Amino acid sequence: MLITVTAAGTGACSDLPMRAPPPKPSQALADILKNSATGEWRQPDPANTLYMDLAAGRVVIELAPQFAPLHAENIRALVREGYFDGLAIMRVQDNYVTQWGDADGTRPMRTAARTLAPEFTVSPADKLAFTLLPDGDVYAPEVGFVGGFPAARDPKTNTAWLVHCYGMVGAGRDNDVDTGNGAELYAVNGSPTRHIDRNAALVGRVLEGMALLSSLPRGTAGGLGMYEKPEQRVPIARMRLAADVPESERVRLEVLRTDSPSFQAILEWRRHRHDDWYKVAAGHVDVCNVPIPVRPIGK
Amino acid sequence: MLITVTAAGTGACSDLPMRAPPPKPSQALADILKNSATGEWRQPDPANTLYMDLAAGRVVIELAPQFAPLHAENIRALVREGYFDGLAIMRVQDNYVTQWGDADGTRPMRTAARTLAPEFTVSPADKLAFTLLPDGDVYAPEVGFVGGFPAARDPKTNTAWLVHCYGMVGAGRDNDVDTGNGAELYAVNGSPTRHIDRNAALVGRVLEGMALLSSLPRGTAGGLGMYEKPEQRVPIARMRLAADVPESERVRLEVLRTDSPSFQAILEWRRHRHDDWYKVAAGHVDVCNVPIPVRPIGK
Repeated sequence: MLITVTAAGTGACSDLPMRAPPPKPSQALADILKNSATGEWRQPDPANTLYMDLAAGRVVIELAPQFAPLHAENIRALVREGYFDGLAIMRVQDNYVTQWGDADGTRPMRTAARTLAPEFTVSPADKLAFTLLPDGDVYAPEVGFVGGFPAARDPKTNTAWLVHCYGMVGAGRDNDVDTGNGAELYAVNGSPTRHIDRNAALVGRVLEGMALLSSLPRGTAGGLGMYEKPEQRVPIARMRLAADVPESERVRLEVLRTDSPSFQAILEWRRHRHDDWYKVAAGHVDVCNVPIPVRPIGK
Repeated sequence: MLITVTAAGTGACSDLPMRAPPPKPSQALADILKNSATGEWRQPDPANTLYMDLAAGRVVIELAPQFAPLHAENIRALVREGYFDGLAIMRVQDNYVTQWGDADGTRPMRTAARTLAPEFTVSPADKLAFTLLPDGDVYAPEVGFVGGFPAARDPKTNTAWLVHCYGMVGAGRDNDVDTGNGAELYAVNGSPTRHIDRNAALVGRVLEGMALLSSLPRGTAGGLGMYEKPEQRVPIARMRLAADVPESERVRLEVLRTDSPSFQAILEWRRHRHDDWYKVAAGHVDVCNVPIPVRPIGK
């Protein structure tokens, strides 16, 4: 029952049980990545890259200042004043969100703003380089990718917004729309929570370490996945901007450009799987069912 | 920063931080469930209900014999011959699947079939009671619900199939379509893997305990989420049919009928959130973004 397979994107080989959906990573996908040009990859701006250090490892988040410039600025301020250091993940709701911030409401803000104008949509959308996905969407007139993030667009209102796919990071808020200041952040840990689109500011996405957030024990309080007891919370050792970390200590990652030919090839591959395992091609792909490739630089 | 909220469906109260998406479970949803009629709920057939006991707790799975009768029968045979007892979860791929079975390929099958005709679609679809979701879908001509499971339908071919939403359980297979015999099962643990629709037999869904499968450490082998070492695997103490467990020891659950008025009210609520937190209603809902309510009987 054991076969030797080649892993997607890494070239590593390993013995694995056959029965799996699918039984082996696609060689076609591995080839697309392997044959991609250097210029098709970009290095995230260190000034827009966050490191959240947990005991289990580091979570790397890329901010999206094109969509949430005020939030990105405020999160930078919060991180630089050490706001998150020693705070914790206090909510892990299954198939919803992993959320962190000041669970007790006692952490002072020194330099950051307490309220921010909502950044739920941006306009004019036609100024954005939008890689349109022609496969349709249940929630928005148009969907696609902008600068490495999954996004939606409404030509009628000329607005665009980021969408709540797995691993996207947003700013929690109270009922008032200006209360999402970036001091409480969440990451989508299950099915896309697309009903939140345009109701909260998405501020970026997890580039690496999402499994550290998705594999945490679920909370049980109040139907919201809050941890019942403070000691169940997962401490944040510290949160820093990559730009504030010595170059030698940075996580060196590159992200496939979503306006590149190789990304188009991946979309096509995801629509029409051409390997031996798939018998029926979907013919379409959902904007949230396209993991955007990230890899260590030089690998 | 603390407010008191009422939890969805439970009526429990708890102090919770305010900033969250959304900050409190909807009273509207709680009211729909509270006001639902007894007859709108059904008790899953014990002959089609599996208990998978892990050290951390019990996972309850409802089989879907309407869509995969041969697989349901074979899984019953496997469970009754003790096939799964002492086997393990060997694969947890982030944002993909949690999978269990015979990782070493040494467990004999005594009464169950080794190969099964593929049950990727059923026909004729127009014989099924199909609750149509009018909001559209990226992958299928029509989507909706059949007997408590999310499903798709193609009127042209008069076929229907279950769809890979969060918590759905499928039969892994090799490249040959008849190799998915139910001896290796997976549960979707992240974004819907809709590209697998019609490429594997979905055999049911997790009614309770999904968090036990989704919160496991991710495997790192081969790009497939396989655990590197046998000792990382998560043992299955035993798997049984509810029908084979004394009534007093069964998990007594009921599931909201997906052809009920209350389920329609939930769909409408999910399209147009009417609480204070939501500022923009999506107006649509995706077939995989509708958790089908399950509750303990008598609660």
